[in-house]
Amino acid sequence: MMTENRIPVSLVGLGSMGAALAKAFVAAGHPTTVWNRTPEKADPLVAQGAVRAESIAAAVAASPLTVACLTTYDATLEAFGPAAGEVAGRTLITLNSGSPAGARRVAAWAAEHGARYLDGSIKDTPWAVGGADTLIYYGGDKAVFDEYEQVLGVLGGDTVHLGPEPDLAALYETAVGVTLTTTMVGFAYGASLVGSRGLPATSMVRYSVKWLQLIERILPLMAEQIDSGDYRQESGPLRLFLDIMPDDLETAEEAKVDAEWLRPIHDLIRRAVAEGHGDHGSAALVELLKLP
Amino acid sequence: MMTENRIPVSLVGLGSMGAALAKAFVAAGHPTTVWNRTPEKADPLVAQGAVRAESIAAAVAASPLTVACLTTYDATLEAFGPAAGEVAGRTLITLNSGSPAGARRVAAWAAEHGARYLDGSIKDTPWAVGGADTLIYYGGDKAVFDEYEQVLGVLGGDTVHLGPEPDLAALYETAVGVTLTTTMVGFAYGASLVGSRGLPATSMVRYSVKWLQLIERILPLMAEQIDSGDYRQESGPLRLFLDIMPDDLETAEEAKVDAEWLRPIHDLIRRAVAEGHGDHGSAALVELLKLP
Repeated sequence: MMTENRIPVSLVGLGSMGAALAKAFVAAGHPTTVWNRTPEKADPLVAQGAVRAESIAAAVAASPLTVACLTTYDATLEAFGPAAGEVAGRTLITLNSGSPAGARRVAAWAAEHGARYLDGSIKDTPWAVGGADTLIYYGGDKAVFDEYEQVLGVLGGDTVHLGPEPDLAALYETAVGVTLTTTMVGFAYGASLVGSRGLPATSMVRYSVKWLQLIERILPLMAEQIDSGDYRQESGPLRLFLDIMPDDLETAEEAKVDAEWLRPIHDLIRRAVAEGHGDHGSAALVELLKLP
Repeated sequence: MMTENRIPVSLVGLGSMGAALAKAFVAAGHPTTVWNRTPEKADPLVAQGAVRAESIAAAVAASPLTVACLTTYDATLEAFGPAAGEVAGRTLITLNSGSPAGARRVAAWAAEHGARYLDGSIKDTPWAVGGADTLIYYGGDKAVFDEYEQVLGVLGGDTVHLGPEPDLAALYETAVGVTLTTTMVGFAYGASLVGSRGLPATSMVRYSVKWLQLIERILPLMAEQIDSGDYRQESGPLRLFLDIMPDDLETAEEAKVDAEWLRPIHDLIRRAVAEGHGDHGSAALVELLKLP
């Protein structure tokens, strides 16, 4: 394997995602140093050619670039405490979930200790790491991104720089990711409804996928409406959502399925219609969601 | 246009979806009779070759098959009152949103008056009517479905018979359709978050589409877990959803965006983890959603 022109990288945090990232670096021929609080997690990677660091400070010292994949920003700050003396002049990239404020806390810590910093988010599962189509987006200093863009391409072929603020990936992750939670709950709810009739959840999948594909076609129009503030819509206005709400609750009651989680969503739509958005698309909900 | 071997059809209810359905029948060469409470709605269809009925009874009498696309099942029952004497020996197909109980009310009315009946749901927007990939599913007597399958294929190329119960399309529509509402609210919420930083909603679309495509790949696995009752999952277990909830609320607070609609979803996940589903996937939520 050609490794001469591959820069050394260190990977800190070997959960399922961190291990997948480390494996991708090793497979691409990067000299890869790994560290995890419970050292055994590194065993499979060491077997593949990674080097185990005895401490997080040693891991940071081993490479110009350290990628951290810990659970939260605060867990990252805590873990990196002992490495504070090693980060100066090096680059730290975090890839975890969390709030923009958390990303800014790590950015401040990195600046204080002389490290360059990017924060990224992976829009996918561990088994997608390294895929040509796998999206990872980053916020932070564009010069740092440019320097490491090719290296980061090893982790996901669809590598994006969102902007210079170090909290942008966390912002987009939160903004976009809420759909994952709500869709999962929605699917479990739907499966409970068909399950009440003895029908399997697998029978829903093909139809749910069609809905998601329809939503994919609608989102660009919805986004344009949000950006323009012109929410007029003939097809599927909010008053139609209002019309089907009692039916939804009747269906849940008959199936003995808990629909409480839908009530605040119904309330939101009801308020939107009451405030004159009945002939508007669901894009108009942004007007209700903005707090004064 | 060849119309000899095309059976006459009647279309009742010319909202945006009903008009699209009528237009598809006319375009396919079916002698098409149309009726709407406000008759002017038929004008564009009459210009294309449809015949305007002077009453709903006349519309039903004009064809062996009447397709109704009114707002609700109860609106359908009310509209069809004056046509009760004409439906015997004919076929009625409803294509509207509503509850399984509503579909059963129309089925009972049709049986009482000697009509054959199917209920269907269109998983798409009016502009998709007639598309080769457009899904319309039906519940009710298989013999009726078989007789009209080709005619119904004019409305959507992906025509499915769900089973003999006349309320199955309404059940699946409710079960699958909840995702539309929650995803729309989720996207509006996400757009409000990025909007608080002056970033356009259009900048989210590409990333949201990636999430939806990821969810499409996850749903078959989630459905299998629901059907088997084995919810164990290494990647993305519910305790990880729990971990990011405080960050989600912190992000919303900073952006001055209303996150109240998320609270019962968070409560559901919190309860699931408390009841031992922390290492399970979101499929386990069905256990919480089933009421005793």
